[in-house]
Amino acid sequence: MKQFSIDECDIEIGNITSSSLEALLTGPYATAKKIILVDENTHDHCLEYILTSFPGLEEAEVMLLPVGEENKVLEVCFQVWEALSQYAIERKDLVINIGGGVVTDMGGFIASIYKRGLEFVNIPTTLLGMVDAAIGGKTGIDLGPYKNQLGVINHPLKIYIDPIFLQTLPESELISGYAEMLKHALIADKNYWHTLCQLDPVKVLNNNHFAELIAISAGIKSRVVAEDTYEKGVRKTLNFGHTIGHAIEGYCLSIEPVAHGHAVAIGMIAESYLSFKREKITQRELLEITNYLTQIYDHIPLSEEDKNGVLELLVHDKKNADGKILCILLEGIGACTFDNVITHQEAYEALLYVDSVYTSN
Amino acid sequence: MKQFSIDECDIEIGNITSSSLEALLTGPYATAKKIILVDENTHDHCLEYILTSFPGLEEAEVMLLPVGEENKVLEVCFQVWEALSQYAIERKDLVINIGGGVVTDMGGFIASIYKRGLEFVNIPTTLLGMVDAAIGGKTGIDLGPYKNQLGVINHPLKIYIDPIFLQTLPESELISGYAEMLKHALIADKNYWHTLCQLDPVKVLNNNHFAELIAISAGIKSRVVAEDTYEKGVRKTLNFGHTIGHAIEGYCLSIEPVAHGHAVAIGMIAESYLSFKREKITQRELLEITNYLTQIYDHIPLSEEDKNGVLELLVHDKKNADGKILCILLEGIGACTFDNVITHQEAYEALLYVDSVYTSN
Repeated sequence: MKQFSIDECDIEIGNITSSSLEALLTGPYATAKKIILVDENTHDHCLEYILTSFPGLEEAEVMLLPVGEENKVLEVCFQVWEALSQYAIERKDLVINIGGGVVTDMGGFIASIYKRGLEFVNIPTTLLGMVDAAIGGKTGIDLGPYKNQLGVINHPLKIYIDPIFLQTLPESELISGYAEMLKHALIADKNYWHTLCQLDPVKVLNNNHFAELIAISAGIKSRVVAEDTYEKGVRKTLNFGHTIGHAIEGYCLSIEPVAHGHAVAIGMIAESYLSFKREKITQRELLEITNYLTQIYDHIPLSEEDKNGVLELLVHDKKNADGKILCILLEGIGACTFDNVITHQEAYEALLYVDSVYTSN
Repeated sequence: MKQFSIDECDIEIGNITSSSLEALLTGPYATAKKIILVDENTHDHCLEYILTSFPGLEEAEVMLLPVGEENKVLEVCFQVWEALSQYAIERKDLVINIGGGVVTDMGGFIASIYKRGLEFVNIPTTLLGMVDAAIGGKTGIDLGPYKNQLGVINHPLKIYIDPIFLQTLPESELISGYAEMLKHALIADKNYWHTLCQLDPVKVLNNNHFAELIAISAGIKSRVVAEDTYEKGVRKTLNFGHTIGHAIEGYCLSIEPVAHGHAVAIGMIAESYLSFKREKITQRELLEITNYLTQIYDHIPLSEEDKNGVLELLVHDKKNADGKILCILLEGIGACTFDNVITHQEAYEALLYVDSVYTSN
């Protein structure tokens, strides 16, 4: 497999056994203690591959996190911090997070806070992790109903992306992560969009060139983050599809949870419609986006009552300011603007548009 | 009162009503929500002065933290984070910490973690806070017996030091803070040491020139921090007296708590002894230090069992590497070196030396 590297966020993409991880473990961290954080899934499906590939991890302490977003909470962090204290882990030691967004978000937070900051390495094992969650330094946990309410921005020492781990994932996980790749294309790279549009997403995931596509997405995210780490400006564009998408995801949580990427895909259809209504993309572009996304992502039917519930959550989005709903809108395919104020009524119309494109098919 | 300012850490020293706080509250933070964190002491003795001096704080939310180091824990932070969520505090809002080291350490931590970071202002009200804890961006809380085991390094937006608050303090608190001033002198400024040595500490605290001495100490700390924020090198020197001092403080917590400065003063005697044993200071210098410190600070008697408990905690010190105990040693008065490895046995001998100087008096 071809190896890629992205300097902005110290990312290496390709076969992890050919990466710099070996040198890290036998060089600067040779005498350090290593702590590996996994969840139940990555413990069963990914850990052995890493442990047998790297003799330097022979004596690593493996700590098991409970699986799932509902466990991305302070109580779990507290238990890990107590264990780190018992193992007498010091500032010079190294945390290695192996997992999806929950493990890298929470593991990065645990490492960043313990003794005011241990270095950590992210090894994302889901597509969503590889192209999004593991990159950019956002670490954090949830507090009650509030997602990522507690956290810090702190970059990992290194991110190793090895597509081999995608083979352990169910198709639905891949489809969810693919939404973020489509987002990268829509906000930043028209050619990339056209490349993706010609692919059958399920087949592409088993494609030899997939590492290359991951590298394009990871590169887009890294460059945006490098330009605006603290999300004062351009980093906000990574929230395309997420204003309405997050509200749908949050609302469905109490009824029948939907995958993050699925909700974001529906959010992207809705926000593309708003971009069209503001004459920022053409009808042809709107149809191109809508057609491709509806082929991949199923309808999430929302009754009138459900729609009202979603709209209510929109008002509480943490990206808002002064009670206004802020949204990323496309400016043609491959470009976008942020901090666009949208009204309640416009958001409602966008949800109706989503219904219409699914029911007319 | 003369006004001083130290640019390195955005510190203003003098009458707070003449400071830039008014401009901050009526300018960039005019429309932001303000959250004031106090403990029971500063609620009763300092809050009213601040509230009546600054009309911009009329609608501030005041949150009361339980007093004392034993409450510098995650459970208290959790309650504050829940309250901040309920008040819908956003990233653009401002936290104002009014208190000693516990309030500024914990309040800084609470602000730094909430929504990945609110801005905060420190208004230290103890001498220890004014010359040490409020400066330098170290925020944190304790985890079980481990002091400051969880935290981040994040600088406050501003630090306002007004000696008026010292009038509210019991003498023991002043004596505790004075230990850090003596530390600054010993590690960095021989002339300052000689100035302090000639003073009766209790009297000097009521002295008109005291703001000037605070400014000297705050300046030493600020310059060291500015040079090495992440404590890779020279910042470690601020831990003089703290390797052994912290262990004594931590150990005594479960028996009969001692003031931080008191423990550090004993730690400075012990570590000065180690500096003498390594021929880094003369016997005359050791006696000069010992004589002045023992005049001010009482003995903390430790049985053999207690000493073993203290030595055990030494091994868990955050500053250690490779399981070795690292210590700051003086190089004459007014200079020092860091990362000196000391043995368990040497630390034990230093504790015996401390006993000897008190019992021979």
